[in-house]
This record gives sequence, structure tokens and C-alpha cells, in this order.
Amino acid sequence: METTNYLFNTLFLLFSGALVMWMAAGFSMLEAGLVRSKNTTEILTKNILLYALACICYMIIGFDIMYQSNTTGGWLPSIGFGIDATAEGASQSSKVDFFFQVVFVATAMSIVSGAVAERMKLSSFLIFTIFLTAVIYPVEGYWTWGAGFLGASEEDGGLGFSDFAGSGIVHMAGAMAALAGVILLGPRKGRYTEKGVKPVPGANMPLVTLGMFILWFGWLGFNGGSQLSFTGVEDADAVASVFVNTNAAAAAGAIAAYLLSLIIYGKADLTLIVNGALAGLVTITAAPDSPTPMQAALFGVVGSAAAFFSIKFLDQMKIDDPVGAISVHGTAGLVGLLLVPVTKDVSIGTQLIGAGVIAAWVFGVSFIVWFALKKIVGIRISEQDEYLGADITECGLEAYPEFIAGRTTNVI
Amino acid sequence: METTNYLFNTLFLLFSGALVMWMAAGFSMLEAGLVRSKNTTEILTKNILLYALACICYMIIGFDIMYQSNTTGGWLPSIGFGIDATAEGASQSSKVDFFFQVVFVATAMSIVSGAVAERMKLSSFLIFTIFLTAVIYPVEGYWTWGAGFLGASEEDGGLGFSDFAGSGIVHMAGAMAALAGVILLGPRKGRYTEKGVKPVPGANMPLVTLGMFILWFGWLGFNGGSQLSFTGVEDADAVASVFVNTNAAAAAGAIAAYLLSLIIYGKADLTLIVNGALAGLVTITAAPDSPTPMQAALFGVVGSAAAFFSIKFLDQMKIDDPVGAISVHGTAGLVGLLLVPVTKDVSIGTQLIGAGVIAAWVFGVSFIVWFALKKIVGIRISEQDEYLGADITECGLEAYPEFIAGRTTNVI
Amino acid sequence: METTNYLFNTLFLLFSGALVMWMAAGFSMLEAGLVRSKNTTEILTKNILLYALACICYMIIGFDIMYQSNTTGGWLPSIGFGIDATAEGASQSSKVDFFFQVVFVATAMSIVSGAVAERMKLSSFLIFTIFLTAVIYPVEGYWTWGAGFLGASEEDGGLGFSDFAGSGIVHMAGAMAALAGVILLGPRKGRYTEKGVKPVPGANMPLVTLGMFILWFGWLGFNGGSQLSFTGVEDADAVASVFVNTNAAAAAGAIAAYLLSLIIYGKADLTLIVNGALAGLVTITAAPDSPTPMQAALFGVVGSAAAFFSIKFLDQMKIDDPVGAISVHGTAGLVGLLLVPVTKDVSIGTQLIGAGVIAAWVFGVSFIVWFALKKIVGIRISEQDEYLGADITECGLEAYPEFIAGRTTNVI
Repeated sequence: METTNYLFNTLFLLFSGALVMWMAAGFSMLEAGLVRSKNTTEILTKNILLYALACICYMIIGFDIMYQSNTTGGWLPSIGFGIDATAEGASQSSKVDFFFQVVFVATAMSIVSGAVAERMKLSSFLIFTIFLTAVIYPVEGYWTWGAGFLGASEEDGGLGFSDFAGSGIVHMAGAMAALAGVILLGPRKGRYTEKGVKPVPGANMPLVTLGMFILWFGWLGFNGGSQLSFTGVEDADAVASVFVNTNAAAAAGAIAAYLLSLIIYGKADLTLIVNGALAGLVTITAAPDSPTPMQAALFGVVGSAAAFFSIKFLDQMKIDDPVGAISVHGTAGLVGLLLVPVTKDVSIGTQLIGAGVIAAWVFGVSFIVWFALKKIVGIRISEQDEYLGADITECGLEAYPEFIAGRTTNVI
Repeated sequence: METTNYLFNTLFLLFSGALVMWMAAGFSMLEAGLVRSKNTTEILTKNILLYALACICYMIIGFDIMYQSNTTGGWLPSIGFGIDATAEGASQSSKVDFFFQVVFVATAMSIVSGAVAERMKLSSFLIFTIFLTAVIYPVEGYWTWGAGFLGASEEDGGLGFSDFAGSGIVHMAGAMAALAGVILLGPRKGRYTEKGVKPVPGANMPLVTLGMFILWFGWLGFNGGSQLSFTGVEDADAVASVFVNTNAAAAAGAIAAYLLSLIIYGKADLTLIVNGALAGLVTITAAPDSPTPMQAALFGVVGSAAAFFSIKFLDQMKIDDPVGAISVHGTAGLVGLLLVPVTKDVSIGTQLIGAGVIAAWVFGVSFIVWFALKKIVGIRISEQDEYLGADITECGLEAYPEFIAGRTTNVI
Repeated sequence: METTNYLFNTLFLLFSGALVMWMAAGFSMLEAGLVRSKNTTEILTKNILLYALACICYMIIGFDIMYQSNTTGGWLPSIGFGIDATAEGASQSSKVDFFFQVVFVATAMSIVSGAVAERMKLSSFLIFTIFLTAVIYPVEGYWTWGAGFLGASEEDGGLGFSDFAGSGIVHMAGAMAALAGVILLGPRKGRYTEKGVKPVPGANMPLVTLGMFILWFGWLGFNGGSQLSFTGVEDADAVASVFVNTNAAAAAGAIAAYLLSLIIYGKADLTLIVNGALAGLVTITAAPDSPTPMQAALFGVVGSAAAFFSIKFLDQMKIDDPVGAISVHGTAGLVGLLLVPVTKDVSIGTQLIGAGVIAAWVFGVSFIVWFALKKIVGIRISEQDEYLGADITECGLEAYPEFIAGRTTNVI
């Protein structure tokens, strides 16, 4: 029976992890569709390299910081390298654990690339990637999932903060890193004028839709796999609930955004609907196992609406996020954390403290790193390069060399 | 052992269901590639929202109508809401059952969106979606898979109609709902002229191909998962046969369409080949477990050829189906049902009755709903909007705002 | 317990096989993005049909040649047809074995289509597909995985050649078939001029990236499934290692290509980075189970660098490979084979002999088939057709009929 458990856990986590790995393609397509054609090759390059760097950095040090040899309920992680051998009597290989976790850190970093699109230097972005995936994320990961002071149960000297699959730990964290970068980076040239916010339509809507569906599909592994174990009826039922609830929250989020878009703008705005579905997914991620399917759908509606208005609000603040990542992952992520007490035995105070600590840590350290990068190597491409597009200047390669007619929508 | 069975069933159905969910992306890409660029955002929006609505409507009432508290061998489903708790001694969670089934209803509805493309009102389409996914499909689903009068065995007072994974119940049903809509909607302006059928080439062939491969991939889960159980050597062998046969039918369907296209038109027409592969898949879906691989390939050829000529025939009838969905899912679906007796102990008469009942029910009720929508709110966009494209008029957003040169292929 | 093993093996191989099937979409998107828009429909058509033909040919005869009724340690395969019934006491259905293997032969053939892009006749390509998938690949497959003279252990009278998931047997083999074709086909018109190599940029970078991510995702099944068994802790640990190592090699390959591109060209060339990731994947495929994750990353770097310089070298030799397939699959495949002795008990001599035999067989027979095709029906489209593009002339259908502005990059 022990062997059977070991096999179920491994099979379950490997295929769930594969689905999460696939989300890298989802972020790539989503972001490539939402930027202008002149910045498409660059954002694709960024997405490939951030995934690659995240995998290597987390393998070398991040996984150890987050999970290995740490004190339960503590603040300070121990430092070591690589992946430890599987412990005696473990219910799955340590490499399965690593594989499932490594695809999460890449997800966190993927959130950043969209928000800083169309004006950030590729090299600075990649240097930041190393910091986030090797240190910043693993440290808050230790505090929470690694059984540090936030995530450990109260008996073990922790707060009992609850975030099943990472509404806060992964999504809001990514959004905070992005927000720090966006503030230091400034908006795209010509985005905010005296006449108001100038729309900059994305170049390729099928890619946007494809990206959303890839993420929706992969999210089943993201949330489902976060049960981390598949060895009894209880696990099986929990994962089944997670699949149903994750799907319901996304569906309800999409419908809510459609209705809001119709009421406010009189049109069925595809990009808002896509972001509504994603916001629903982010929201349910904090507790996809405990709500009823109907609750999950309602949570999706709440998260979707919050992200919808957050997108408008950030534009009023002149915080320029070309893909809406900060609202979809940050605002809806926070909403998800605060909805956990509805279905789980945890106080809203605990959730607020957890959210505050994660946000403060990730935003604070990210701000310092971005700031240092800005001073030392610069984080923004030149005005001329921004006009020409990052594809030519950073990658030497147009995304669609044969397609562009005269009707480009260059803002400046 | 009971727990092990529970785990195998759940894991098998969850990952199969995830693959079927992924088919939503396949329909989106296929249809987005087959319409003109001015109607692309709208068809993407339609695909996202139909999937979302299908999930919510089926969760609220459709699943109950189809499966819960019904009389075996009966006509009239009982009415209730939500997903019942898992029954004592069940071999998997009721939520797993729901998850696998809910992605099927979405598939049925996806078939409709392609056929009515480029001229239907988004709002009316969405209202119809609610009717189909909450009532029309669940009722015929009860009659068949829900052990109603068609699907129950003869001992249980049913007809013993056989449709393993839904050639008729899902695909032909979707095609019938589409046909009713298309007849009431009329063809696109300028499609049928005195000089004959005016070709309206799809805007994006890579999307068409991607959509087909997504569907092919997802179909392994669609047909494989329909074994519904994975607890013994017999199940494992059946699912292995299903995978091999599903793949063989699609492959043979593609080759058959290639040869037909070459013989009749002298060219290897990509869209016909894609539809040939899909027709092969639809055909084998009625009985993917029982044929030999070689039989499966031959069935794929028959279904592909039937869809090929059906596409031509519908154009002669001036029934305008921009993506060929009615032929690929309806005609090939019927062929699939009628081929079941070759490998299973069921009479062709039973299959004909089953096909007739499903077709009459879905076509009839759909016709009434479409007709009521046409009278009350209208189902067709204005001629002006059709000329401008539904992207601008329904969604306020172009699909490819930077790409279009002067060479658009507006029909009117 | 025997039943449980049977279920684990089947579930594991079916879902792994489904992931490999999905790689067909990856090759399609990758190649469609790397060619010019005027040759896009044709390469999509080629990819669908080669997959379809591979499935049918391997079903009819290839699988039998490779695996059924052969002498261990021998040279000459027995000939038979179809898929034998599952043997008494087998640990999984023979159809599962077939399904997993059939998607490999399609992969081998996919490699060819990219290298001969933009100038080969579709009909000749398809005839060659039949030869490769029915005979050429199955014969070398018998010699190696089928326990013929290369792959059988030394006790069984073989050489003990080691290639876990097919760096040589699948990837280098595909590259050799491609090389033979490319040599006989000649370069695209205008590619090599007196002034040097004329760049021919691919038309669609998001497709290139999507293709790479599909392949990366599918490769987890390709390499993971090649453990072929999932019945004990040892299997589970091996597959976990394979997933981690496969991912690490791809990540490191991408980063290495980025750095080389930056150093040599001063830009982050997306197509080189994509090929770097793929070369990393090809390299690790020969032994993804035995290295440590860090070794796997280093192997990825070596393979990526080898492919990088191989691409430059082939251009100097005026061997025109529009997508870099010969370098990515051939050169990196060879590197993978030669790195096996670092982590496994096999001599470099054995690996060299194995590589040499596979290369000589596949190149030699492919050359003869291509040569015969060239003499009998021709393998190259006319100069006029090459100028117009194969989409119109072979398929009668443009890939992007509404998009192309005046700025096409026709070489002649």
C-alpha cells in the first residue's frame, strides 16, 4: 500500500506540474497578444528567459531556501543548495516536490513581465528575475508554505495563515514585484495625456484568448496539484472539488466581466472578459477546496469585479500596466485571501497580516532591487527605442515582419 | 482495493476532463482562424462566454436534469438543482462525474458558434446558450446516458441505443441546434450569388491548424474518459483501444480528405483536411472501444468522405455554415451512430430511432427558441454591422488592429 | 497488485503518449512561424498529413517491424502486420505500447518537414513519409529499442548501445533523413548570394514561441514516458528525475543560446533562443534519468552551444535548413548520445558505433529514396511556384489572406 501511495502521489504531482509548466506558454501568448506588434518578439523572449532563469535559480538555491532544513514557525530560512535526497519514509521523491514547486516560482515571475511591457530593458528585467526567483519569492515561500511564522499552525508557533495554492504567495506576490517596477519605470510615452488615458490596443486577440485558455487549463494542475497528496478518498474528493471550483470561479468571473463591460461601455470587451476569467481563477486559488461550487462562482464574481475596477483605478493613478496584471493578480489575489475565512476556520485578521507581510516584503525588496538596477544599469529603454519598438532594438527581430501595414498605433 | 479504485477513477476522470476542457481552446482557435479578421474578436468572445455559461447553467440545473433522481427507462426527467453529495459506496466523487460531464455540454454548444459565425447577434447567441446547456442538451442526455428510454438496456425498459462518447448525443446534437439557427438566420450577405458560391477564405490558417490539433489531443480525453471507470484490466485495455482508435480515425480522416481534395480540386486544401480529421474523430466517437484499429481507420475514412460531400451539399442548399460544423459534427456524427452495429450488438434500427429522436428533439426545441429570439430581440446583426464586422460593433475591439492592409475580403 | 501495476502502467503511458501526440502541434506551430507567410499553409498541411500518414503506416507495418517477433540481438527484423494481441502475463496492453511508440515515429518525421520547407513538393514529401515511417525508422528502431544488435545487452549478443528516449533513434535519425533531402533539394533561391547568406526572417514569432512551449511540455511525456513502466518506487523516482532533468536542460539551453546570441550578435535573438531550448531538450533525451539536475543543465548548455554553431556551420556549407532542424535535432542529438557515458555505464565507443550505424542507415536509405523520387516525380517545386509561394500553388489557399502588406520578403 505504501508503494501504491508513492505511485499515486508521484503520478498526480508530475502531471499536475506539467500542466503548471504549460502555463508559461499561457502567459507568453496572453502578453504577446496584449502588446503592440513592435514589442511582441521582446515580450516572448522575456517570457522564455524568465521561465528558464526561474527554473535554474530555484534549482540552485530557491528551493532550498523555501523548503529545506528550516525551523518551523521561524523568520530566517537556512541557506543551502540543490535538492536534498528523498527523506527516509517520504511519500514521494523530493524531485517531484521540486518539480511541482519550480513551476510556481516561474508563474510568480511571469506576472511581472506583462506589467512592465513595452518599455523595460530586457537585461535589467532578467537580473531582477534572478533576485525574485532565487531569494525574494523563496523567503516569503518559507514563511508560508515552508511552515515559517506565517504558515505554521498556531500549535507550531505560527499564525495559521491560509493560502491553499497561492492567491497571495504566488499571484499577489508577483503583482507586488510588478508594481514596484512599474512605479520606478513610469508609464509608456503618450499613454497619459491631458485629454485622458490613450487606449493602446493589443495587436493580436486570438493570442490573448489562447493565453487565457492555456492558463485556465493549467490552473487545474496549479490548484489541483496543491492538494500535494493523492492517497485516499479524502484527497480524491478534495481534488475533485478543486477542479470543479476552479472552473466555476473562472466561468463566473468571465460572465461578470462581460456584464460589467456591457453595462459600463456598451460592448463585450474581450480583454476585460479575459481578465475577468483570470481574476476569478486568482481569487479561488486561496481556497479552492472548501467552497461549494456555487460559492466558488460567487467568489469568482467578486474577484472579477474587483479586478475590473482596479484596472480603471490604476489608470487614474497613472500606473501603467499594459496587460492589467497588477489588478488581475494583485487585487484579485488579495480578495481571494480575504475570502478564505468564509469557508475555512481562519480569522480575517490572520489573513490581513499574512497579506500585509507578503506584500510589504515583496514590494519592499523588489523596490530596492529595481531602484538599484535603475541607478546602476538603467531599467528603461531610450525614448527612441520605445518609439521604434523593443523588437528591433532588443532582439533584432520583428515579430510579424511581413504583416504590418501603415496603420500602426504608435503612441508617440 | 476499494480506495485504490476510487483513486484510479478520480485521477483518470479528472485528467480526462481537463483534456476535454482544453477543447474549448480548440474550438476557439479553429473558428477564429476560419472567419474573416473583422469577425474574429467576436467569435473569440462568443467561445469564452459560451464555455462559461455552459459551466454555470449545467452546474445549476443541467447536471441534475441529466443524471440525478431520474427514472430508469423514462421520458420525463426529475428537476432539481446543484450537484448531489457522493452516494454511499460510490466508486468516485459526484464532483468528478460532474466535472467530466460539464465539459461535454460545453463541447456541444461550441459546435453552434462556428456555424452561426459572422452575422449573429452576440446577445441572442448567449441567451440560446442558456437554453441549450440548461435544458435542451440535459434532457436528451437523460434519455441516453442518463439511462432514460433511449439509453437504458432492454431489460430496463429502454431501447439500448448505443453512443459511447457522443457522436450523436454531443456532436450531432450540437449540429442540429446549429442547423436550426442557421436556417432562421440566413446566409452571410453576398455568400450565394447568381454566379454561384462566393468563397470567403478564413483569415488565419495557423489558428485553424492549432485548433484542430487541440481538438485531436483533447479528444483522447473525450473518448478515453468516456469509459468512465479505470479499475481493472478490462478498463485499461478498453481505454488503450479507445486512444489508438481515436487517433487512427482522425489520421485516416485527414488522409481521405486530402485525397478527395486532390482529386476534385487538384489542391491539398488545408481547411478540408482539417475538417476531414475532425470528421474522423466525430465518427469514431460513437464506438471507439470496439473496432480494431484498422476498422477505426476505415470508419474515419467513411465519416470524412461523408462530411466532405455534406459541406458541398449544404452550400448547394444555400445553408451557410462558415466553418463546416454542421457537416463535420452532424453528418459525421450520424455516420458514427450508424456504424456502431458493425462492431457492437445493437441493431441499426435502434441506432436510427435514437438518432431520429435526438435530432428531432434538439432541432425542434432549438428552432422554437431561435424563432422566439428572432421575433423578440432579433438574432441577426444589421447589414451595416455585418459589413463593418462584428468585432467593432459587438466588441468595440479589432482582433488585429495593426495588421490589415487594403486587401480585405469583405463580401458586401 | 498485478492489476494495480497494469493500471499504473496504462494510465502513465496513455497520458505520456497524449503529451507526445500534442508535440505534433508544436512542430506545426514552430515551423509555421519560421517560414514566410507565402509558405505557411503548405507547411501546416505537411505537418498534419505527415502525422496522419505516420500513424497509419506505423500501425500497418512499422510497429511490427520494430517490435514484434524479432530475434534478440539480430540485424534482420521479421515482417508482419498490425498490432499483436497482448501477451499472456504482460504488464500492459499491447495497444498502449503501440500508442506510445506511434507518436515517436511521427516526431521523427516532423523533424524533416522543417528542413525541407519553402521549396519541396508536397506529394514527394508525403511519399517519403511513407518510406520513413513504415520501414526506415522501424528498422533502426528494431536494432536499438527493439533489442536488435545495437540495443540488446552484451549478454544477449548486442552492443549495449544506450539511448533512453531517442536523442539518436528519433532526433538524429530525423535530422539524417532531412539532411539527405536537403542536399538533393538544394537551397532556397536567393538564400546564398555572393554577398553572403541572405536572412529570411520567419513570418510569425508568437507561433515560434508557442511551438517551442508545446514541445517543451510534450517532451515531459516523451522522456518521462520512456521509462515505460510505473510500478514501483524506483520507477516513480526515475520519472521524477526525468521531468526535472528535461526541464533543466531546456532552461539551461535557452539561457546559453541567449548569452551566445548577446555576445556574438549583440541582440537577444528569439529564434536562436528557441532553438537553444530545443537543443537542450534533444541533448538530455539520450539519458534524462541518470544525471543530477545540475549535470542535466550543463548537458543542456553543451547541446545548445553545439546546435548554435552547427547552424552557422551549415549555412557556411550552403546547406539550407530554414528552421535549423538538422542542427537542433542532429548535432544536439549526437552530443546527447556522446554524453551518456558521463552518467551511465556504457563506453563512448559503443555510443559512437550506435550513432554511426543509425546515421549511416537513415542517411543512406533516405538518400536513395529522395534520389529516386527526384528522378521519377521530382522533389522541388518550380522556380515560379517558389516565387509565388507553395500556399497558392500546392494548397490553393493563403495562410493570412487579409494581412499581407506590400512589405513581403520574397527572396527572388
